Order: sequence, then C-alpha cells, then structure tokens
Amino acid sequence: MFHKRLFHSSRAALYNTLTPLTHLKHSHLQRNPNFAKITDKDIEYFKGILSSNNILYDPDPESLELRQHNTDWFNLYRGSASLCLFPTSTEQVSSILKYCNQRSLAVVPQGGNTGVSGGGIPVFDEIIINSSKMNKIRHFDDVSGVAVVDCGVILENLSQFLEKKGYIVPLDLGAKGSCHIGGNVSTNAGGLRFMRYGSLHGNVLGLEVVLPDGTILDNLSTLRKDNTGYDLKQLFIGAEGTLGYVTGISLLTPRLPNAVNVAMVALDSFETVLKAFVMAKEDLSEILSAFEFWDVDSVDVVKSQQISDVSYPIEGKHAFYALLETQGSNGDHDQEKLDAYIARLFDTGVAKGGVLAQDTKQADFFWSWREKIPESIAKSGTAMTYDFSMEVPLLYKMIEDTRDYFNQKGLLGKDKLFSNLIGFGHLGDGNLHLMANLNKFSENGQKLMDDYAFDWAIKHNGSISAEHGIGVAKVGYMNQAKSDVQLRLMRSLKDVIDPKGIMNPYKIIPKE
Amino acid sequence: MFHKRLFHSSRAALYNTLTPLTHLKHSHLQRNPNFAKITDKDIEYFKGILSSNNILYDPDPESLELRQHNTDWFNLYRGSASLCLFPTSTEQVSSILKYCNQRSLAVVPQGGNTGVSGGGIPVFDEIIINSSKMNKIRHFDDVSGVAVVDCGVILENLSQFLEKKGYIVPLDLGAKGSCHIGGNVSTNAGGLRFMRYGSLHGNVLGLEVVLPDGTILDNLSTLRKDNTGYDLKQLFIGAEGTLGYVTGISLLTPRLPNAVNVAMVALDSFETVLKAFVMAKEDLSEILSAFEFWDVDSVDVVKSQQISDVSYPIEGKHAFYALLETQGSNGDHDQEKLDAYIARLFDTGVAKGGVLAQDTKQADFFWSWREKIPESIAKSGTAMTYDFSMEVPLLYKMIEDTRDYFNQKGLLGKDKLFSNLIGFGHLGDGNLHLMANLNKFSENGQKLMDDYAFDWAIKHNGSISAEHGIGVAKVGYMNQAKSDVQLRLMRSLKDVIDPKGIMNPYKIIPKE
Repeated sequence: MFHKRLFHSSRAALYNTLTPLTHLKHSHLQRNPNFAKITDKDIEYFKGILSSNNILYDPDPESLELRQHNTDWFNLYRGSASLCLFPTSTEQVSSILKYCNQRSLAVVPQGGNTGVSGGGIPVFDEIIINSSKMNKIRHFDDVSGVAVVDCGVILENLSQFLEKKGYIVPLDLGAKGSCHIGGNVSTNAGGLRFMRYGSLHGNVLGLEVVLPDGTILDNLSTLRKDNTGYDLKQLFIGAEGTLGYVTGISLLTPRLPNAVNVAMVALDSFETVLKAFVMAKEDLSEILSAFEFWDVDSVDVVKSQQISDVSYPIEGKHAFYALLETQGSNGDHDQEKLDAYIARLFDTGVAKGGVLAQDTKQADFFWSWREKIPESIAKSGTAMTYDFSMEVPLLYKMIEDTRDYFNQKGLLGKDKLFSNLIGFGHLGDGNLHLMANLNKFSENGQKLMDDYAFDWAIKHNGSISAEHGIGVAKVGYMNQAKSDVQLRLMRSLKDVIDPKGIMNPYKIIPKE
Repeated sequence: MFHKRLFHSSRAALYNTLTPLTHLKHSHLQRNPNFAKITDKDIEYFKGILSSNNILYDPDPESLELRQHNTDWFNLYRGSASLCLFPTSTEQVSSILKYCNQRSLAVVPQGGNTGVSGGGIPVFDEIIINSSKMNKIRHFDDVSGVAVVDCGVILENLSQFLEKKGYIVPLDLGAKGSCHIGGNVSTNAGGLRFMRYGSLHGNVLGLEVVLPDGTILDNLSTLRKDNTGYDLKQLFIGAEGTLGYVTGISLLTPRLPNAVNVAMVALDSFETVLKAFVMAKEDLSEILSAFEFWDVDSVDVVKSQQISDVSYPIEGKHAFYALLETQGSNGDHDQEKLDAYIARLFDTGVAKGGVLAQDTKQADFFWSWREKIPESIAKSGTAMTYDFSMEVPLLYKMIEDTRDYFNQKGLLGKDKLFSNLIGFGHLGDGNLHLMANLNKFSENGQKLMDDYAFDWAIKHNGSISAEHGIGVAKVGYMNQAKSDVQLRLMRSLKDVIDPKGIMNPYKIIPKE
C-alpha cells in the first residue's frame, strides 16, 4: 500500500461508492487522439529505468492499488490510468518525460493527492508520475534559513525538520500530513500562514524542473535576490504541472517564533467579524499570523462527525467564530497586545464570547475545529468544495445569496438536493471556502452549484480559485473568468514549452 | 525641460563630458538590420496619436532635451534616439506599439531614468517611450491597502500619498524622488525594505501590460490570492521591458507602522557586522525592517562630497557601520526590544560605538549617510556600480579580494586607474553593492573590473545582479551566469511574446 498517511481509515468506506469517471461527468472533455496508448514495449522501457517496485501497472485501472492514484481524496474525480510511476530521482523523471514526449504519451504529475480540483488525477489514461519516492531534504542552511528539498517531501515532515532547527515552513494547511511540497508549489497553495508570510511566488527562491521534453532546468538558486533575466521559476509556481515537473524546491523559511498565541472568539454577525478583523490588524499588526472564520453551520458539520464527545471551546450558539493567532519574538509583549485586543473586543461589544488558549495543546484543539471542517463535510456525503477570493466585505454575502437562491428553489435542506451549505475561510486573505454536500452524487447538482457560485464570484470581481487551482474542476469556467488575451497568452506559453501538450492535459486552459 | 526632479544641479556638470555611445563601449553590439529607421511618415503618425508637446523629436540625438533621455543618471550609457514619446494613456501606448510592431521600429520603455544597467536607455536609435506623463494614482482601497497606479507615478509621490492614508509602499530606495513605479516593477527593484516586506513578485497583485503587438493585457487584479491559471503578471516583473510595456500596477501596501526606530552602530570587522546582524534577527525579529552596512571608505566618499560641514553621527573611525531600523505597532515594546539589543551589542563587545535616533529628523540624517553613498561616488568621477547577492558570510570577502587583486596590479589608489573601491549594501538580503571610480573613463578599466567581479561572483555561486537587472551592462556575462537551458527558455519566451524583437532589444538575453 502506498500513502498510508493519506488514506485515513474513514476514507476506506468511500471506496464502496466510486465516483463516476471524470470525463463522463465533464462530458465536454474528449481524449486527445494524438496521444499514444501504452504498449508492452513502453512498460519494458520503464522497467529499464525504474526498479520494479517503483512501477505500478495493471491493465485494470480500478485495481485496488491503482484506485488510490486514479481517484482523489474527496472522491470527486476519477481517471483510468493503468500505469503509475514512482521515480526516485530527477534524472529518472527526465528519462521518463523524454521518452513520453517522443512517444506522445500523456502524463499527469501527482503529489500527495490532496488536491481538490482534480489537477493531480488523470482524466483518461495519462501515465501518473507520483512524487512520493523523491522525499529527501537535500540541504538546509541554518544561517540564511534556506531549505532545498525534493518535490515529494511531505509538508509536515519538512515542518518538523525545520522546527528542530529553529525555523518554520512559510506555509501551513490542513492536508499537511499528506501533501507534498512539490504539489504545494505546483498549485501555489495558500493556506493558513499566507496572511503573515505571503505567497509562494515570494517565498520560493528557486526550482528544479524537468521540462516536457526531459530537459532538466536547474534554477535552484538559494539567493534571496536574483535579477539575472526572466524569473523562470515563477512560470511553474501554480502551473499545476502543465508546463513541467517540479522536482526540487529552494524555499526561504522564517524563524520559529518564540511565542505563539491562539484565541477563539464568538461573534453574532459577519459585520462584527469584519470589525474584529480590522481591530486585529490595528492592535496585533506585525504579530498577527492568522485570522480564520467560520459559520455556525460549519460547527454543526464538525460536531456531527466527531467520534468522541468533545465539547466546543465556547459555550452557547453564535452565528460566527473567528480564530486568530499571533507569532512573535517576545511572549510578554505579544500577551500584552493580545490582552488589549481581547479587552477592546469585549468593551466595544464586538465579541460575544472568547477564549485564549492556555497551552500548545489547547491551541491545537482550537485549530482542530477549523481544520476539521473540510474533512468533516467530506465524511458527511459527496462534498463539493469551492474557494473564492473577493473583497473582504463581500465574503459572506456570497454564502447568504447562494443559500437564498437554493432555498427559494427548494433545493437546500435535509433530504433535499444539497443537504447543507457552509462558509469559512481565511478572512485575512479575502479567501472564502464554500462547501456543500450533495445528498447523492448528481452531475446536475454539481453543475447547478458550479454555475451559480462561479457566476456570482465573476460578477463580483472575485476569483473562482483563490488557492485550489483550476485543475479539471473549473476549466469549463475559464472562458468566463479570464479574457481572450489572457487565455491566448497562456496557450502561447503552454505551446512553446510543451508543444505536444503531454504535460497534464485537459487542465487549466480550455480548448479553443 | 522634462524630469526636473531627476536632474539635480550637481548632475548638470556631467553633461560637459558625455560618455561614449554604448555600442562603441560594448562593441559586440550591432544594430539589428531588421529594424526600420524612423521616417517623416512615422513622425506624422505619432503626431496623430499624441499631442505635440508629448513628442520630442530632433534629428540630433545630442540636442539638450534628447540627451536627458539618451543618457543615464550615472553617465555610463548613451544611445542615439531621435524620438522620445510621452504617452498619457494605456491606449496611446497600445497604438504606439501596434504601429511600431507593424513597422519593425524598435522601442525602449523608459521610466524615471534612474536605472544603473542601461536598461532604460537606447543602444542605437530605438524610440524611447517614456512613462512620465502617465502618473495618476488610479484607485486606493483603504480597507485592503491595495493601490492601483499608473506606471509613471514617482515612488516618493506614491509614498507620500499612502502615508496620509496610513499605509506605506513595500519598497523604498535611494532614487525614490525620481524613479517610476513602472520601472521599479520592470527591474524588480529590491531596495531598503526588501528584508521586511519581500519581493515585488509577492507584493504586486496585478499588472496591466501592453504587449509588443499593441494588445492590452489587463491582468490588474486587486485580489491577494488568485490561482486561475498561469500567473501572467510574473513574466513582466523584472523583464526590464523586453516582453511588454507595463502601464498599470496593482500593489499590496503594508500599514504605516506606529513606531519607527533607527540606530547606527560602529563595528571593527565584518565578522562583528555579521554577529550584530544575527543578534538583530534574534532580538528584533518581526520588527526589524532594515539592516544596512557600509565600510569606512564609503564614509570617506560621502564626506568628500558633502557641501556643508555636517559631522558624522559616530565619533572616531571604525572599519564598518551598520544602520538598522525597526517598524512596529507598539512604540514601547519596540523601544524595549531595541534597548535590549543595543545593550547586548555593547555587553558582548560586538559594537564599538552606536547611537539611537531621537526623532524623525535624526533618523533621516542617519539614513542620509547610507543613501548618499551612490550619489557621492557618482559625483567623484566616472562611477562603476555593481550589485551582487551571495551567501552573507562571503559578502565582504568579495571587496577584500577585489581590492587585493587590483592593489597587487598597482591599479587601485589615488591617481591610479581606479581611484577608490567601496562596499556597502543590504546585509539582510545578502546583497552587496561594490562601487568604484575610474579616474577617467576607460573601456579597458570598466572591462577589467567587470571581468574580475562577475567571475568572482559566479565562482562563489552568487548572482551578478541582485536587484539592478541585466540591461546592457551585463548582457555579455549572461552566458557565464546562466545555463544554456535557462537562456534557451528565456529566448523561447521572448520569441513567442515579441516575435519581431522590437521591445527593448539588445538587453538581458545575449545573442546566440
């Protein structure tokens, strides 16, 4: 079994109800006839490059082992790859791509398989090139804080390694126990520390990338500043593996803060959530490292999936909750700032309840109520997940409008088409996650929600993908979300770097 | 007269000794015969687009008005443009480029003309498209802190505008009184706040760019997070105008800090400079916003050019000086952290002298000793300026090795080929500026220094351009600094976006 970490016991159940094949759900997708089909000779070739335990081949893509790579974590996308390769070095990736390019065999790069847009899952029979066996931390400089790592290093492993050295990853997200840093870079993952440490476009110092023809682009600089020509690495950050295979990453890591404080606050309206956020920016400023929010429906979903009967940190029922975190170098100063902030929240009547974590264990417990939201809704049935960014004041209006719309149509509620609809996200980044459960999978239900939500975001100058990427999930909406000029330029870049189009086809850029 | 701000009275003198034409100094550069030459019909066309006071045409490129655009601030580069256009809108830039592309007329985008690599100066007769008349702040949102501005807004003007709103530009540099934000983006300027706020690749949220064929790419997002396809704006950040003309910028701006403190410290060796830096990262952490250093030779150069007899902030003579700045939300907390840091510097014997600015005026005075270094050396004769990045511990070894090398050859010293050689820079970013004066301009002298310094940097895994860009100054060294794969990919991008090569030719990418 591969990826033990990923497949929680709770996921196993889902294998009983495999999601329909992606190309059947998105019927506009058709296999590109220019792509070759795998032959025995191809398998022989790969056996010459990789050791046999790093090749997973089964003519039946639904075999138990291949399923894990043909299906995503949320059970929303499914492909039919019969071959999954596990290279152990950049040179092996290079040999594989060189061969695939010559043979016109399409490939899909795959990391920890925690993506939610289907970007790492084949649509048809693309060969999966999984990064889990490239998992070495190559180098760490504890003066500069620069880490150079293989693409397949699991985020949490890097995090634990760095913490021992007095540093942290500038990125944190719920899937950290499974996701690969190469996948994070390829989707330009945002996550929980974005507000403080910013985008990977700023934190990634260099990349090693295998181009679609097998050429190794060694751009693995460890310098903080380097203006020698075009910043080539930027092309591959967020390209979802459509321009090349990211094999190595050089990352600037911030120092481990001396003091971390976490508070949870109850609020009665989204307006007061916004007020609490503005006050946090004023009072906590440079030490504020996260400001997350969620609605009461999110809490209900998490509670419904809790195995043990743990009680919620704040008594009573409130419309919204916010979790805020500070990271700083001086615990006393931070505490003083936080105390003043909390006092102000209560004095002004903005907060209706609140609690400050007394130790790391309690801080983790508070965080768990935020981090368990996506997992819990996934367990509650077929889950649909969205991530939008827009002007902060609009964030929750989207949830309200969507609820109103489907309520009026009689489609939202227990035993209806959508059993629930929740809103939560990274308020500090203007990033909203809308999630909903379908009582049972229905292509129509997914399309109804997609159409309404993507339209709403585009109409309000928002982004249909703040951080999850386009993958195959949103490729059908790119014509609305982007201008012809933007799409044309994206196609030009794709064509010049991957003229045969073998790298992760059908993703990001819609067919002309 | 254009650009009154730029041309300090002290610069006027330099016009008596015009530097030789760039293509004579860099004799490998030859005019691309595919480019058309300007005809009367072309001038007529431009008169149809622009009002007559926005067209500067003179068949004599050495006319007083054209000189300002044909020559750079340091008087190191000189071109022969007979036409300089001052568009006032994106649409005008579009019409100009569409026409130039059809006619195969080469162009060079020019901002405040403060670049030091010759990137904004024509090499031959390229038409200059200057951004000084596109200088509106289009929009500012004081909730999100996102500013949308024209390319020609002067950095200091934006800074003053934002400070009134409670925000700051995440970028500050000595040339702020003249440089344009479009030029900053195009060279990916680093500057004095980089350590705290990071790269423009992280802070620029969107760009409006006119592509070489006149197409307007509206990528002017104001969203902090947006993963909808390739992050196209990244292509143009640091491309030095070779891929398109940046007309609009959407920028995330940080909040104005409540408290700013500045200290200057005297140190006796580069080793103790490093110790002071590591301690600053430990003690000041999230509030440390700048850590600059310079050597005693830099002080001598500034003193030699001071008009009034102002005394240096620290008594005695020391080998090195460091300036450090903190920016934070709570003045008392910051002061306490800074006091503890300064005390530690003295207790451990790391610092030999030091002084804390008592007010803004004094802080500005301390900063002026750092900011005046480049200007002073420029006034001292023909100046050569370099900016390298490398591992922090190596930074000053480069200066020492270079001095040793030229001392041994008898070329360094009063009345010798190089009259002086100084080192200073942004220690926090691993960014060193080496500057030297040539007693009188000599192509050979420039080449001797270039060869030695660029070789040294490349051998030590450094960058030959941390922040100044390649322009025409370093294009001859790109074959050493970059791999064939990197150069090939850069060429592919250039060819696909600018097939006729009209945008800022001869820059960045060496001829094959």
